[in-house]
Amino acid sequence: MPVSVIAASAGVADVLTDLFIVLLAAKLGDELFRRLRQPTLVGEILAGLLVGPAVFGLVEPSEVLEVFAELGVVFLLFWVGLETKLSDLREVGPTAASVGVLGVVIPFAGGIALGAALGESTGTSLFIGAALVATSVGITSAVLIDLGVLERRTSRTILGAAIVDDILALLLVAVAAGVAAEGGVDVGSIAVTAAIAVGFIVFVALGGTQLLAARPALLHTPRFSESPLLPAVIICLGLAAFASQIGLAAIIGAFLAGMIVAETRDQSPIEAEIEPLYAFFPPFFFAFIGLEMSLAAFGDIDTLLLLAGVTLLAIATKFAGAYLGALRMGRRDATFVGVGMVPRGEVGIIVAGIGNATGTIDAELFAIIVGMSVITTLIVPPILRRLATSEPEPQAEPA
Amino acid sequence: MPVSVIAASAGVADVLTDLFIVLLAAKLGDELFRRLRQPTLVGEILAGLLVGPAVFGLVEPSEVLEVFAELGVVFLLFWVGLETKLSDLREVGPTAASVGVLGVVIPFAGGIALGAALGESTGTSLFIGAALVATSVGITSAVLIDLGVLERRTSRTILGAAIVDDILALLLVAVAAGVAAEGGVDVGSIAVTAAIAVGFIVFVALGGTQLLAARPALLHTPRFSESPLLPAVIICLGLAAFASQIGLAAIIGAFLAGMIVAETRDQSPIEAEIEPLYAFFPPFFFAFIGLEMSLAAFGDIDTLLLLAGVTLLAIATKFAGAYLGALRMGRRDATFVGVGMVPRGEVGIIVAGIGNATGTIDAELFAIIVGMSVITTLIVPPILRRLATSEPEPQAEPA
Repeated sequence: MPVSVIAASAGVADVLTDLFIVLLAAKLGDELFRRLRQPTLVGEILAGLLVGPAVFGLVEPSEVLEVFAELGVVFLLFWVGLETKLSDLREVGPTAASVGVLGVVIPFAGGIALGAALGESTGTSLFIGAALVATSVGITSAVLIDLGVLERRTSRTILGAAIVDDILALLLVAVAAGVAAEGGVDVGSIAVTAAIAVGFIVFVALGGTQLLAARPALLHTPRFSESPLLPAVIICLGLAAFASQIGLAAIIGAFLAGMIVAETRDQSPIEAEIEPLYAFFPPFFFAFIGLEMSLAAFGDIDTLLLLAGVTLLAIATKFAGAYLGALRMGRRDATFVGVGMVPRGEVGIIVAGIGNATGTIDAELFAIIVGMSVITTLIVPPILRRLATSEPEPQAEPA
Repeated sequence: MPVSVIAASAGVADVLTDLFIVLLAAKLGDELFRRLRQPTLVGEILAGLLVGPAVFGLVEPSEVLEVFAELGVVFLLFWVGLETKLSDLREVGPTAASVGVLGVVIPFAGGIALGAALGESTGTSLFIGAALVATSVGITSAVLIDLGVLERRTSRTILGAAIVDDILALLLVAVAAGVAAEGGVDVGSIAVTAAIAVGFIVFVALGGTQLLAARPALLHTPRFSESPLLPAVIICLGLAAFASQIGLAAIIGAFLAGMIVAETRDQSPIEAEIEPLYAFFPPFFFAFIGLEMSLAAFGDIDTLLLLAGVTLLAIATKFAGAYLGALRMGRRDATFVGVGMVPRGEVGIIVAGIGNATGTIDAELFAIIVGMSVITTLIVPPILRRLATSEPEPQAEPA
């Protein structure tokens, strides 16, 4: 064997090449869609689709790209957290809760009914239900940031509902796991899981914001950082890791971290500090969604029809649930919230990936759920953009 | 199997946790060493050693951490490139070339002689030679940035020598590969390899700087970025990936990318834009060096003696070669350059890793080369700091 530094760097060379291709492609897609006056994240997703296995096969999805994608959505929600005050969330709390609950229950019921109609097993049906429940708040958040409407009441409601949604998804999973293991549902352990999740969110949201509001210097005292950037990033990674360790989505932790750090905002321009990380990582998140899509499964008409049916069901049930939950805000706002909850994004793909890996769903159903996730993700941004710019809310700053 | 988003995020949760622990530990090490008025990167390396398998075992080295480490040194050298003008390198060219050549030849000869003295095979001896040749300009660069002496002539010489060093290492590898394959040395293909490497460096250094000096708007026109940050990062990743694909170190490409982008510096504060990426990634580079170290092999006195011998040989041969090469600058400057070339850092560890993976070196020799790499990396920063602050060069800005 050659005594070779070349060989050593071969793995690293390929990873660097992948990162370069994905970032370049995503930003070219961004550029194109910006010129076409379309939502740029759609351009980034389609760029991932083009360079990925579905079309040109320049880049394969890998663990490293997945981690970059995850950090992309983590820094995206951290950014959203920075723009959110705890009081904003409290204000929309009851509406967000009903949006979250109905936005979970109706799609879940719809998915189970579909599974039963297709003659699938209970496990597979539960699984289809879980895939339809998935909400990708990352996609909607990116659109809201892009449109400059993050501070609207409807936007806050979507964020709040995403938190409720994630807690419910956690419980759903615990129940489904009990059913799948055929040991019945362990109500005690599910109660503990729920208590830990809710306790974490409440403790961090209340305690963390109070702590940093009272002692903003905590972000500034370490000598290892001339700015609050690294302390803030460490808090973000820590809460994201903790949230995912207890079964919540990592982005819930990142969002809470942003909300905490924002309490020190008057002291320093933390957004400006974080901006480069926010510019660097999220393109990987969007492109990765496209990278994971395969077109090969959609060769026959039956599969395409099933894809169309599942996608319509996913859209209709999620929209209906969220719309009903938000109806007290008026029809216009309820429509915005309903549409905003529709994208399945990476969460649907993750659910499909587990189901495929565990043999709960076959290759066809896997492709269909991934396809549904990508389609719901691609169609929502243009609609949200149209709704947002036609909405005459006073505090809006149209992009 | 549980229909579980929890299971899906388990891998991601662990990766996020690793990233959090490593970043937090590195920055705590930084904080401690800053308070002790010691070089902070030593604190970061020791923090990696502490959380890694050698001591507490909280984090194992993984591919993701390796990629973060690599991006750490890539952004570090990109930063150094931003601070370097092509004319600075031209000025120190001849001296840098002699430092590079002697700094490769003498350690390589020393390593082969040691291998022969230990009764090792030709392959293993060549390998020890290659491990002694390795230079980690990343470590020295970080110290030079920290001390604020990057613009000194001695610092430029070290950077120029590192480029020469890397080209020679590439050729050495090609020769060693020929010998190891027992097919003899293919002079033609080695000439081609060398021509590609030198051609890449010259073409990028001359053509790239001229292009961006003439048309700095190239970094500003894309609509996907409000700042030149992402275009600059894409150039950095692209050149780093290309350099590593043709067998050079990725950091050579990153350094050249920084030098090119710096041509547009008058147009915008690119350093300020890049700073957050420069703050985020490099701690992983330093901590990873510590993470890869194992103490288990050093249980017996023979191994410790061999470690001491190899380390002394590594220091003496590299210092002697670089010192002799730089002697025309005067003894004081030659001493600075000689010391600056000594750290083996991640490069020595990579070489040791390949040798171990290919069976060319056994576990004991592997541990010794890694140990030598870490020791040379830990002892140089304090010495450089002392030399730099006692140096009365006029253009110096002591830290």
